[in-house]
Amino acid sequence: MSPHTFTPAHAFHLEDVAAWNIETDVVIIGFGIAGACAAIDARLAGAEVAIFEVAAAAGGSAQLSGGEFYLGGGTDAQRAAGFDDPVENFRAYLMMAGGPGVDEARVDLYASHSLAHYQWLKDQGVPFKGTYLAGKWPEPPTDDELIWCGSEAAWPFRAAARPAPRGHAAQFTGRGAGKVVMDRLAGRAGQLGAQVHLSSRVLCLIADRENAVHGVVARIDGEARTVRARKGVVLASGGFICNQQMLRQYAPLALAVTGMPLTGGNDDGSGILMGLSVGGTVTHMEQFFVTKTFFPPASLVKGIFVNARGQRFINEDAYHGRVAQYAIRQEGGRVWLLVDNATFGRPHSFPAIPIAAVGETWAEVEAELGLPEGELQHTMEVYNRHAAAGADPLFHKEPEWLQPLTEPPFAALGFGPQDYPAVTFTLGGLQTMPKGEVLDATGAPVPGLYAAGRVACGIPRWGDGYSSGMSLGDSSFFGRQAGRSAAAVLRAG
Amino acid sequence: MSPHTFTPAHAFHLEDVAAWNIETDVVIIGFGIAGACAAIDARLAGAEVAIFEVAAAAGGSAQLSGGEFYLGGGTDAQRAAGFDDPVENFRAYLMMAGGPGVDEARVDLYASHSLAHYQWLKDQGVPFKGTYLAGKWPEPPTDDELIWCGSEAAWPFRAAARPAPRGHAAQFTGRGAGKVVMDRLAGRAGQLGAQVHLSSRVLCLIADRENAVHGVVARIDGEARTVRARKGVVLASGGFICNQQMLRQYAPLALAVTGMPLTGGNDDGSGILMGLSVGGTVTHMEQFFVTKTFFPPASLVKGIFVNARGQRFINEDAYHGRVAQYAIRQEGGRVWLLVDNATFGRPHSFPAIPIAAVGETWAEVEAELGLPEGELQHTMEVYNRHAAAGADPLFHKEPEWLQPLTEPPFAALGFGPQDYPAVTFTLGGLQTMPKGEVLDATGAPVPGLYAAGRVACGIPRWGDGYSSGMSLGDSSFFGRQAGRSAAAVLRAG
Repeated sequence: MSPHTFTPAHAFHLEDVAAWNIETDVVIIGFGIAGACAAIDARLAGAEVAIFEVAAAAGGSAQLSGGEFYLGGGTDAQRAAGFDDPVENFRAYLMMAGGPGVDEARVDLYASHSLAHYQWLKDQGVPFKGTYLAGKWPEPPTDDELIWCGSEAAWPFRAAARPAPRGHAAQFTGRGAGKVVMDRLAGRAGQLGAQVHLSSRVLCLIADRENAVHGVVARIDGEARTVRARKGVVLASGGFICNQQMLRQYAPLALAVTGMPLTGGNDDGSGILMGLSVGGTVTHMEQFFVTKTFFPPASLVKGIFVNARGQRFINEDAYHGRVAQYAIRQEGGRVWLLVDNATFGRPHSFPAIPIAAVGETWAEVEAELGLPEGELQHTMEVYNRHAAAGADPLFHKEPEWLQPLTEPPFAALGFGPQDYPAVTFTLGGLQTMPKGEVLDATGAPVPGLYAAGRVACGIPRWGDGYSSGMSLGDSSFFGRQAGRSAAAVLRAG
Repeated sequence: MSPHTFTPAHAFHLEDVAAWNIETDVVIIGFGIAGACAAIDARLAGAEVAIFEVAAAAGGSAQLSGGEFYLGGGTDAQRAAGFDDPVENFRAYLMMAGGPGVDEARVDLYASHSLAHYQWLKDQGVPFKGTYLAGKWPEPPTDDELIWCGSEAAWPFRAAARPAPRGHAAQFTGRGAGKVVMDRLAGRAGQLGAQVHLSSRVLCLIADRENAVHGVVARIDGEARTVRARKGVVLASGGFICNQQMLRQYAPLALAVTGMPLTGGNDDGSGILMGLSVGGTVTHMEQFFVTKTFFPPASLVKGIFVNARGQRFINEDAYHGRVAQYAIRQEGGRVWLLVDNATFGRPHSFPAIPIAAVGETWAEVEAELGLPEGELQHTMEVYNRHAAAGADPLFHKEPEWLQPLTEPPFAALGFGPQDYPAVTFTLGGLQTMPKGEVLDATGAPVPGLYAAGRVACGIPRWGDGYSSGMSLGDSSFFGRQAGRSAAAVLRAG
């Protein structure tokens, strides 16, 4: 190609393509979970597939995850453990979890195909043990499969949908089952004949003057190469937690609170910019996942979080990411987890957590934290009095986690911005149809362009409603939709 | 022109323009305050100007406003009333008011030119009386000029910048000085020779294949006409509070809480779509203004707001829009304003407000509202005890507004979603340079395209930090920048 400066934000003009260096049916940008699943289903539909991955290996951010899929509707693992979770019940949870901007059509498709998708994952070789692990875990420390992984059993979700565990983790002993998931899915895509280009950055889309997408320019072995996509291009390149400029423009709060982005390192937003370059639009860009995982030990869930006014602000048995969302909204993000001698522990995820105050009475802790006199004492008196009766009239924490905090010494664990770095990733992205078509500002599909995974805005689109496994569940399922939609395109050469 | 379906989301191709029906230097879309000020300064710079306004008259949403401009830096009105507000102090307030995504360059330009802009407004004929009205008013009920119109005197803003009143209202007796403002500014634009096309909808931009903007297609007298802009097009068409689809995509919470959009009726987002159609990008689209004005009577500021847990959640002397932002975030948006016999009144803006509970004791009110037993009583005991000493250690309400609520009967005014409809408008919009250039995803200007007012994202970009007068101040000042930037363009025909 002639010398040219490429940027993902500007599509290269089809008319300026002198020759195609590579031709295929479906180009997939990114070999994380969305890209792998798009490749598998596009190949199964008979399309030629070429995947371009900027990293030197497949896996994306999914391989750093706990390998959990948020599934329901009565999976074998759910049934074996005695949980009844009909599709309609699963759907009700997802509707609440989607928040004020929930995408009902997307939820319907996902909920009604959850069982089939679960089987599909097994068919691709993802191992699931079928066993249930009781308790409250961010991810299984064992090789068990089914765990509680969101706010299912917590108010107000338990009022919207009958509680059921829905975290289906791949079989792997210890944390990090995401690696097993990606080994299997990426391997399967390769077995099925997807052409994989590693260490290959897609520089921009190639589009005609009507913004229809016909291919990409990719840097392969240091050379800019034109790649024709006869059927379509699938963006599966991840979110934008690594892109400071985009965070400033779209999610300044995420930028402000981020201590530790959860990413394989290439969530640079380039796929979103490519979508914008051909008239795609974005949605929910301000939304993000944030957490400061505070259990195990599960005894810490029996503690209470308070802000700088000594007030509680959430039921502590909600999903740890929901707790973190509420925490960052408190004045200055200054919050503490209060525990007594019976419940004390250090979060396994962050044992270096500072102990901000210790006392033989809650009045001492209140004074040491510099809280307004009497407020923490009141909060604690009310909490303990009701907890002793198994009730939490203010925040509706479940009885299982209610235990009066009355055994000295008492302690305050620091969960403020300076205490415990927040883990984040972005939830906003391109506006798409459930089947993967990227939509322009008229609500019409951009011809030839599909997107799935965190480059798009999917099922998880509200930080307050996130549950572990939603991103893998969404990215794998909607990655498949995008791959199949692209593979089904018939268009004149 | 040949038959064609136009949509603001797709630019018409320059190559397809057979002939120009109208030619001018600068096309301005929208004859609200941003458009009028853009027209004035573009004319003063010597450019030919044509304004297209979809309504049958000039005025836009600004004419429904209180006609207040948020200005500082030591205006004559501030000095006459004895307030010292150096530019650096004014700037400090605006920086906090901009929130986590504050645009420092924009704040710098605005703060440092505030005095000159104020003089400019006077030069255009906007009348200001120069007098100060003490107290707390959403807008002056008299023809006075200077009022406290934000959170200047309230925590935490008073800690960031020395308090000073900055609402400069045009002279007009009673509410609605926006009409005076728009009569003068629109009249001035006409006097200066701007060509005004009323009842004329701009259908889309006209752009070349590199997305440079060369004009617009406008429907004039029922006919689609091509309009050439030799220098540039200024989008000044307002926000998107009237566009349900855009609210769903970008600001679902605004859609959920809106009872009464504050709009002249044409804030349909079409200007934002036009910007997107040529590669512009958006920012802060989820942010919006919301209020349920609860004073006058000012005695109500001495009441306290509580949520469904009986907790206070804000210092009640903060700006009414900031109070509303906090209110809508409380569980279910269920909040009440609690007053005693000495402070009782009905908000002048909404005298039909429901009285949700009345009692001879706060315990009775607590029970009637169905709050958790003892919580409101505790809240009130703590508040009253400290208020008697002139302090509010929890929320830092200023002593002026602290008065124990101890004189029965006691009442709870309903401020929930069903009680009092929220007034809203959008704050997100196109990403622009302070001088008005619309920016694409690379951060580069879209040639020939400028934007100001609520079609762009300006000084007010954080609902929690809004003050009355910020939108008029921003729209008038940055409208001028956009008009002058467009007028200064030199390009080959």
